[in-house]
Amino acid sequence: MTVSVLALSGGIGGAKLALGLQAVLNPGELAVAVNTGDDFEHLGLAICPDVDTALYTLAGLSNTELGWGRGEESWNFMTELERLGAESWFRLGDKDLAVHIERTRRLAAGETLTRIIEDFAKQFALATRVLPMSDDPVRTLVETETGVLSFQEYFVRLRCAPQVKGIRFEGAASARASAAAIALLGAESLRAVVICPSNPYLSVDPILSVPGWRSALASCAAPVIAVSPLIAGEAVKGPTAKIMRELALEVSPATVARHYAGLIDGFVLDHADAAIAREIDIPVRLARTLMRNTEHKKRLAEEVLGFADFLIRR
Amino acid sequence: MTVSVLALSGGIGGAKLALGLQAVLNPGELAVAVNTGDDFEHLGLAICPDVDTALYTLAGLSNTELGWGRGEESWNFMTELERLGAESWFRLGDKDLAVHIERTRRLAAGETLTRIIEDFAKQFALATRVLPMSDDPVRTLVETETGVLSFQEYFVRLRCAPQVKGIRFEGAASARASAAAIALLGAESLRAVVICPSNPYLSVDPILSVPGWRSALASCAAPVIAVSPLIAGEAVKGPTAKIMRELALEVSPATVARHYAGLIDGFVLDHADAAIAREIDIPVRLARTLMRNTEHKKRLAEEVLGFADFLIRR
Repeated sequence: MTVSVLALSGGIGGAKLALGLQAVLNPGELAVAVNTGDDFEHLGLAICPDVDTALYTLAGLSNTELGWGRGEESWNFMTELERLGAESWFRLGDKDLAVHIERTRRLAAGETLTRIIEDFAKQFALATRVLPMSDDPVRTLVETETGVLSFQEYFVRLRCAPQVKGIRFEGAASARASAAAIALLGAESLRAVVICPSNPYLSVDPILSVPGWRSALASCAAPVIAVSPLIAGEAVKGPTAKIMRELALEVSPATVARHYAGLIDGFVLDHADAAIAREIDIPVRLARTLMRNTEHKKRLAEEVLGFADFLIRR
Repeated sequence: MTVSVLALSGGIGGAKLALGLQAVLNPGELAVAVNTGDDFEHLGLAICPDVDTALYTLAGLSNTELGWGRGEESWNFMTELERLGAESWFRLGDKDLAVHIERTRRLAAGETLTRIIEDFAKQFALATRVLPMSDDPVRTLVETETGVLSFQEYFVRLRCAPQVKGIRFEGAASARASAAAIALLGAESLRAVVICPSNPYLSVDPILSVPGWRSALASCAAPVIAVSPLIAGEAVKGPTAKIMRELALEVSPATVARHYAGLIDGFVLDHADAAIAREIDIPVRLARTLMRNTEHKKRLAEEVLGFADFLIRR
């Protein structure tokens, strides 16, 4: 099946809408381009948190209880690692380890992340294409009051506590955008591009920071729709609102819409923010953006795709 | 406690007697120098099967059911690795992975295997010193009718099926013997050296192939005792007898005793081989060498140490 929808996603929040899109599209119609700015080397392993979240979520293998990692997970490796006195702030489950070890081995053998993830998806019987935003290393660095932190140090080890003063994407300037994703953006078969309700600054910006992504989105013939990660001034999960306050940005979907100016053709925001819609100078659609269950995800996916179709017909 | 006994050991068979020695000595009196010719890199991990067998066995953490690996083990990593289509002939348990990943990380950071294993032993609350025979890589290669195989390919993947034509130890000539072990061999406090009933050709020879080991054993003031790995023409476990036949050696404890000629002061063989004792031209002691339980291990350890003490008093 030809890909008709390309979603841009960070981790958990983005993967929820991607799952909804996958559910309402035919198998193989969805591709998800995923942030790799969160990637890091830990314990000698190449770890790609957002890519794995996309893989696990879309393959039905995610840990719905924890909200991250593999479902039906065990933690015997971690317990023993702690016994050895090794670093244990980043939790790696026994099942989860398989992708890290095999990915690390294959990257060391010279394979691209794109190719490795394509194979993993196949082994997981996943029809949706999961595309790393780039095969080149890009590392999100968080500038805080206490110094520059790697993303995982900031996000996992320090639980987003430090005040953020800036965010930058090391390696982005010399990285190349995913060739597969850029090809999709230029394909006539594309029906819509969806920027998922991921953190715009920490999860979507790393993608946009890689040369090639912005221009391909801006010139894409299909409508590009962003979904607000904020509902009534707060993020459903994660530090979006906190970071916006720390960066002296107004915590409003309108700020997010402006952030994507020149790239998006439409913006979806929650009914709770109906009053803000007038502040946004591109087409908007109100929807229920809180996704608590599969039905919510599917309904939002349908709203977003319907909105895209409406924008084409105009 | 000062080390008084140094044991040389390969994997499972050797670790059994080491466990017996540990049980009859005071905590800290035993050091075990372990073969690292079996070590290999697999899935990007630095794996040291014999060293880990020694660690796990002596720390009471071994898998007594399987005979290798960690006790109370789970296999979720392995199941997932298979799902990814990765190599799965070498089984790595979830708990076991912790030592491989942490060791790989620390080796890559420039630490010596000796130091890493010393720390692991400490974390396992192990009083016995476990010393890799060398910190430099030595790789046992098995020359077979179908070509040269790495040890683990021969031993695990092909289950010792190929006919052995020769054995060599890559890297041995330029490797340096364990400084700690060589220092122990020269120490006045040493009461005995025990060459455990490991495979002489695959498990003990790699140790002896590293420059420094032979001369230190030959000049050691304390008695050096070897224990026969053969009972009535067969090995308790493993391919010792098969390899001896393939190398056109007589499958007899006398062959093993001659193999260690110039290095050992005494040889322990099973009561079943009493008739062979006369063929051995160094002091011998008959003992029950089959170790089915803790009592057997302790009794053999006491026999060996008693024999060493007898040789000193002569």
